[in-house]
Amino acid sequence: MQESLNYIFAASLKSQKLITNCMFISSSLRFHYDQLLHFAHEAFVKSGFPVNDASLATKVLLSADLRGIDSHGLARLSGYFRLRDKNRINANPNIQVIHESPSTATVDADNALGLVSGPFAMEKAIEKAKICGTGWVAVKGSNHFGIAGYHAMLALEHNMIGIAMTNASPLVAPTYSNERMLGTNPMAFAIPAGNEPAFVADFATTTAANGKLEILQRKNSPAPAGWIQDAGGNSTNDPFALQSGGALLPLGSDKDHGSHKGYCLGSVVDILSAVLSGANFGPWVPPFVAFLDPPDDPVGSGIGHFFGAMRIDAFRPEKDFLHSMDTWINRFRNASRIQPEVPVEIPGDQERKAEAERLLHGIPLHEKVIEDLLSIAQRLDIEFPEAIKS
Amino acid sequence: MQESLNYIFAASLKSQKLITNCMFISSSLRFHYDQLLHFAHEAFVKSGFPVNDASLATKVLLSADLRGIDSHGLARLSGYFRLRDKNRINANPNIQVIHESPSTATVDADNALGLVSGPFAMEKAIEKAKICGTGWVAVKGSNHFGIAGYHAMLALEHNMIGIAMTNASPLVAPTYSNERMLGTNPMAFAIPAGNEPAFVADFATTTAANGKLEILQRKNSPAPAGWIQDAGGNSTNDPFALQSGGALLPLGSDKDHGSHKGYCLGSVVDILSAVLSGANFGPWVPPFVAFLDPPDDPVGSGIGHFFGAMRIDAFRPEKDFLHSMDTWINRFRNASRIQPEVPVEIPGDQERKAEAERLLHGIPLHEKVIEDLLSIAQRLDIEFPEAIKS
Repeated sequence: MQESLNYIFAASLKSQKLITNCMFISSSLRFHYDQLLHFAHEAFVKSGFPVNDASLATKVLLSADLRGIDSHGLARLSGYFRLRDKNRINANPNIQVIHESPSTATVDADNALGLVSGPFAMEKAIEKAKICGTGWVAVKGSNHFGIAGYHAMLALEHNMIGIAMTNASPLVAPTYSNERMLGTNPMAFAIPAGNEPAFVADFATTTAANGKLEILQRKNSPAPAGWIQDAGGNSTNDPFALQSGGALLPLGSDKDHGSHKGYCLGSVVDILSAVLSGANFGPWVPPFVAFLDPPDDPVGSGIGHFFGAMRIDAFRPEKDFLHSMDTWINRFRNASRIQPEVPVEIPGDQERKAEAERLLHGIPLHEKVIEDLLSIAQRLDIEFPEAIKS
Repeated sequence: MQESLNYIFAASLKSQKLITNCMFISSSLRFHYDQLLHFAHEAFVKSGFPVNDASLATKVLLSADLRGIDSHGLARLSGYFRLRDKNRINANPNIQVIHESPSTATVDADNALGLVSGPFAMEKAIEKAKICGTGWVAVKGSNHFGIAGYHAMLALEHNMIGIAMTNASPLVAPTYSNERMLGTNPMAFAIPAGNEPAFVADFATTTAANGKLEILQRKNSPAPAGWIQDAGGNSTNDPFALQSGGALLPLGSDKDHGSHKGYCLGSVVDILSAVLSGANFGPWVPPFVAFLDPPDDPVGSGIGHFFGAMRIDAFRPEKDFLHSMDTWINRFRNASRIQPEVPVEIPGDQERKAEAERLLHGIPLHEKVIEDLLSIAQRLDIEFPEAIKS
């Protein structure tokens, strides 16, 4: 048993041929970033969102498409609108601070788009950090906030370290359980450097994010063992196992490979985002999909986020820190390689490369996403851009 | 290939028979906690540590033995003394705050025992939190601080959330690398509850902690695939692979199972602990073992830690939070089980049970640890306690 697992891990380490990320969608049409931005902005405005909120929401949403995290960008636009239609998203919210201390605040998002309440809360954390050294903001009554990395990276504009996390619809089973208790609960850390680009880590606290599973579902390809379990708690390769009562697995996959650590991480994200703010937590988190109703016994309000901003010079002279970060990044980038042609990456490298490439050559959209956007265009009577001619 | 991995994960999820933790050392002699405390205190004092520091260091060290994390307790005592003998640990340090803001501080530990500088820094974080809502302290010039959980749990006495992390000697290879660049870099989160015991997560950001590997080495048993790689970067079952140029793997084991996320986590711990404080980071972290010299081109001073304390009522009325935490804990404890006889655990359950059991029946010590302690007793001319008669 050990021998065969050994073989598989060895093969996987060596070949790195299995699914790595959803960065480039082959055989998709591509569209100019500016035109998609214009389209999504119009769609938000025509759906009743104030112009300023529409601009912000569009920018946050498209940052996912730009950075290659396709599952969190325009692919989700129609989902936001369906929640709006069910009054589960409030287009004209009164987002406000309801509790605070010198370095903290709690925000009631009044069922806003997380794309709007997220930046509001992160700016509040940055404001607190300017005065106190650090700022920490918990948010309740919110909705899906796009990619965590966007919010964390807002701190970089002030040469601060940014942290962002959120809870999400329950899809993940804790170690020893076959019940979906946690979301994929991502966390992001953005850390400024000097001459090097910033260190930006943004990841789900599961072995694989749901977006990667969706790619396999479209292709009808088997999922690697250790990503999901079936309704009985057995590991399975069926990429559709979630639809029949299965669950995603915490980072680590099984107890022997540290799934209890992934479960700890997902739990910490859930508690800081929701128990600390007064949002729904664990299995009470309302589903993102509008066709599923939220639990009828809520333990809080909406979903929750948690943000942090830390001023570098609250700890150490800024130039010393930036110099050390450059040293850190250079040393890790030049770490000895297993395969000469596969370099060691710094968190954020892939997303930055995707952004540069997509700004130049356009954003590829999957045909099902295009269909979805065309139907929004038709319903709202707005124009959907032409694909880039190749 | 998928099928066999599938089988193994399924078997592992179902049987949970593989190595789970180092909680109970079978066929070991047991000793009373109070007597071991007395012995270790005497050993510290006779080695030149001031009485107060000796008391604190002993308490922190023994908390690991009590909580079942045997690799971080008395098993390390002789290692601290060897570093003391090489003047790499300063028995009479001037630990001081060298930089601060309302919610932050940076501490220069002056090569103190981490067992002493850790609590100093955590108390400073708690002090800041009392005034500012949160407190965050980075430490440089330090040494191994025992278990991260001890320090995080200090916040619980003030009904605060506690966070502790540290970098450590490089043993871990980033994704795509065969070079040891990071330590096992643990993080701990202690979160108070109302009627339920606190949530305490304390874990290395690797698939398996080095202590678990040491247990396999003693037994000469194979390591599960995905824990370690050999010098060439191939997965291996050889528990001694570290001694021949191999490396531990980040949480996630390989890229396909999210090792890049474990690499991110270990990196964040390294950066917050050391780049932010001015300690050594990455491959420059001085080794814990005294027979290996620190790198001769240091990029900072000693090893680094990072601590946080957050006042609950800086975010939400305390009683509401504690009530919600009780709900959270009860709901997760009662999550549906894969196997009826294996309950879902709350982080901290195992360690709390170990502590209760060991306070009652004594702390089991491995024969090699006893040998080591007897040799300390002889050298310092102090008495080592008798084992408990069974």
